[in-house]
Amino acid sequence: MTSVREVIVTPVAFPDPPLLNSAGVHQPWALRAIIQVRAADGSIGLGETYGDAPHLALLTRAASAIENLDIFDLAGLVAKIAEALGAADAPDRHGLTGDSTAAKTLARVVSPFEVALLDLQGQAIGRPIYDLLGGKVRDRVPFSAYLFYKWAGTDSWGPALDPAGIVAQARSMIDQYGFESIKLKGGVFPPDEEIAAIRALRDAFPGLPLRLDPNAAWTPETSIKVAEQTEGLLEYLEDPTGGLAGMAEVAALAPMPLATNMCVVAFADLPEAIERGSVQIVLADHHYWGGLRACVELAAICRTWGIGVSMHSNSHLGISLAAMVHLAAATPQLTYAVDTHTPWQSGVDVVSDPLVISGGAATVPDTPGLGVTLDEDKLAELHDNWWRCGIRERDDTAYRQSFEPDYVKLRPRW
Amino acid sequence: MTSVREVIVTPVAFPDPPLLNSAGVHQPWALRAIIQVRAADGSIGLGETYGDAPHLALLTRAASAIENLDIFDLAGLVAKIAEALGAADAPDRHGLTGDSTAAKTLARVVSPFEVALLDLQGQAIGRPIYDLLGGKVRDRVPFSAYLFYKWAGTDSWGPALDPAGIVAQARSMIDQYGFESIKLKGGVFPPDEEIAAIRALRDAFPGLPLRLDPNAAWTPETSIKVAEQTEGLLEYLEDPTGGLAGMAEVAALAPMPLATNMCVVAFADLPEAIERGSVQIVLADHHYWGGLRACVELAAICRTWGIGVSMHSNSHLGISLAAMVHLAAATPQLTYAVDTHTPWQSGVDVVSDPLVISGGAATVPDTPGLGVTLDEDKLAELHDNWWRCGIRERDDTAYRQSFEPDYVKLRPRW
Repeated sequence: MTSVREVIVTPVAFPDPPLLNSAGVHQPWALRAIIQVRAADGSIGLGETYGDAPHLALLTRAASAIENLDIFDLAGLVAKIAEALGAADAPDRHGLTGDSTAAKTLARVVSPFEVALLDLQGQAIGRPIYDLLGGKVRDRVPFSAYLFYKWAGTDSWGPALDPAGIVAQARSMIDQYGFESIKLKGGVFPPDEEIAAIRALRDAFPGLPLRLDPNAAWTPETSIKVAEQTEGLLEYLEDPTGGLAGMAEVAALAPMPLATNMCVVAFADLPEAIERGSVQIVLADHHYWGGLRACVELAAICRTWGIGVSMHSNSHLGISLAAMVHLAAATPQLTYAVDTHTPWQSGVDVVSDPLVISGGAATVPDTPGLGVTLDEDKLAELHDNWWRCGIRERDDTAYRQSFEPDYVKLRPRW
Repeated sequence: MTSVREVIVTPVAFPDPPLLNSAGVHQPWALRAIIQVRAADGSIGLGETYGDAPHLALLTRAASAIENLDIFDLAGLVAKIAEALGAADAPDRHGLTGDSTAAKTLARVVSPFEVALLDLQGQAIGRPIYDLLGGKVRDRVPFSAYLFYKWAGTDSWGPALDPAGIVAQARSMIDQYGFESIKLKGGVFPPDEEIAAIRALRDAFPGLPLRLDPNAAWTPETSIKVAEQTEGLLEYLEDPTGGLAGMAEVAALAPMPLATNMCVVAFADLPEAIERGSVQIVLADHHYWGGLRACVELAAICRTWGIGVSMHSNSHLGISLAAMVHLAAATPQLTYAVDTHTPWQSGVDVVSDPLVISGGAATVPDTPGLGVTLDEDKLAELHDNWWRCGIRERDDTAYRQSFEPDYVKLRPRW
């Protein structure tokens, strides 16, 4: 029996371009927390999660609760962290996953430790993590080009504030990564301008599936109008409006399926979502569903009710990318290319051997565990960023207000 | 990488008492098939399933399809068996799991091979199977006393054809095994007689939870009447009537929850069952749900919709018992004691070290894999039984007709 000897939680920050969304604009630094679980035999399991201060405090509490845990005891992991957190509830201030609850907080805190234990299990038994999730059903995991309206910033991408800018960004991103589907983060400009961007993408990339995600910036009425105007253009429309009732209203009339990572974000959301027919695709995210195994269960539910599955992404580093790839490799019903912010992280990472996206996909690693290795120097550098950057909670709205004092976050805005 | 070198499917038969049910009476021999999967390193993984001839033919087809498979490749297991079976469909003639489909047949055929591969995985990595299912949440798995109306037979139990006989059987079984809950297989006598038996059990065992399972022998109207007359007496009523619509009709008025292993027997049944509110408890059975991991997914669905979980049993030997115990050990939401036919198998087994039920529960084995060992001599003996007994398909109805020519299987009968 191999058990947990030590757990280290390291907050990190890495440069993030000024990407626009319906809540404001990305701050210059993205926060993450890197989890190292050291087993009694000296091996290290890795996890990655959000780096906001309230979440960090809970991660630290969880870290001390799991010392001496058997690395295979995933049931014990949840029980021990639940006990350590009690009714603690760290709100998701960015507001993507709705009202916070103790259960959602527990799922978010458990997730990186579960990934780290699976990494340790895989190393201990000499098998890749996908083998602990049911086995590999694909050798390559397709990702989509994740386009953002953005300001100029200090990054190499340049601004993108109109259809031509978005098309240019897509072309550059596809040239570098070979993506074969495209997602546009919307909810930034009035719907007509974003529809125009989608049309421009369709003209520029006639063969590639397109998606639009305004992060609930629209009313149900606006959503239905946009859905009608983009008929035949989108493989799915993502979170056009907020809430299960509003989404159901749109789904009933939209000619394309609706996807979500905002209104179905926990198991407790599924019964009502299914009863109402609110969504046709769930974008899983192991960071808040409670880990990789929870996402396998989510996928089983989606399979049972004929709901499509793909994956949501926040700004992340190479540990999360590897975890997503293993999960996608073991998920038969993954029906769409996965989202990733990888192109926006400018090659910065905490692992020495990040998975590479080329030809629009990442090759699934067949090495034991996650298949990526922590680079202590890079970790130290990104931790130093965290000390120096001064940001302790993600707040896209406040950052945008620092440039546009009259800006208010409004959902729906149109 | 350890792979499958050889797969051996051995049909066996063991003596079965004349237990009565709504389809007839148990034949003198119960059929099973024992699966041995020999890995390249010489270790042997065990599985156990139904032994009816049409099922055996498909097991044999599956066995040759999985040679050289990596023992961790459970996704490949399903894919290879699906390919080997094509649209093959071996009806469940006993009729417990409703109309047969290719998908249900695939699930039944995959199951024992999945258990055998998990057994091999556990042995290869030195961990019990429960660790491959999410970890152990309990050290002891409670079972219920499974009472049957029965004829005299050549067994040591004697007849039980009225309330006094049932109480005597319960007392004997509880004396031997220490069960702390009681299930009566009903659907044999008119409902009033079975209600009288339940009342007699309540008087004789005031502290023990009771269940009644007539295997869909009743109309919805009769079911509702029985449910009303047994209010306060039953922890649940199992499959009083057939079909999701009938069960929903009863569930709406019954004062106790309804359990099923007849109308929710595959993932495809869940959406309608949940929409209608047909059942409050699903009795999982890895033999037809597609294996242990499929049952973990089923349990996740039940947890999400607030449905209780326990386990169904057919006549079985010690390999199935061990598989059930590992699954129950790793299922947090197992809310009721598990069914087992163990007391009816008269100590006959194919393993040398069967798990022991005492104090009403089996202690979960912490040894690698399933934790039971095939006894080659016993296997040979039970295989010899199979050659000699002449029974090739379970048919409780025909066997009863051999004694009572006018007997007809009727569901509903009352």
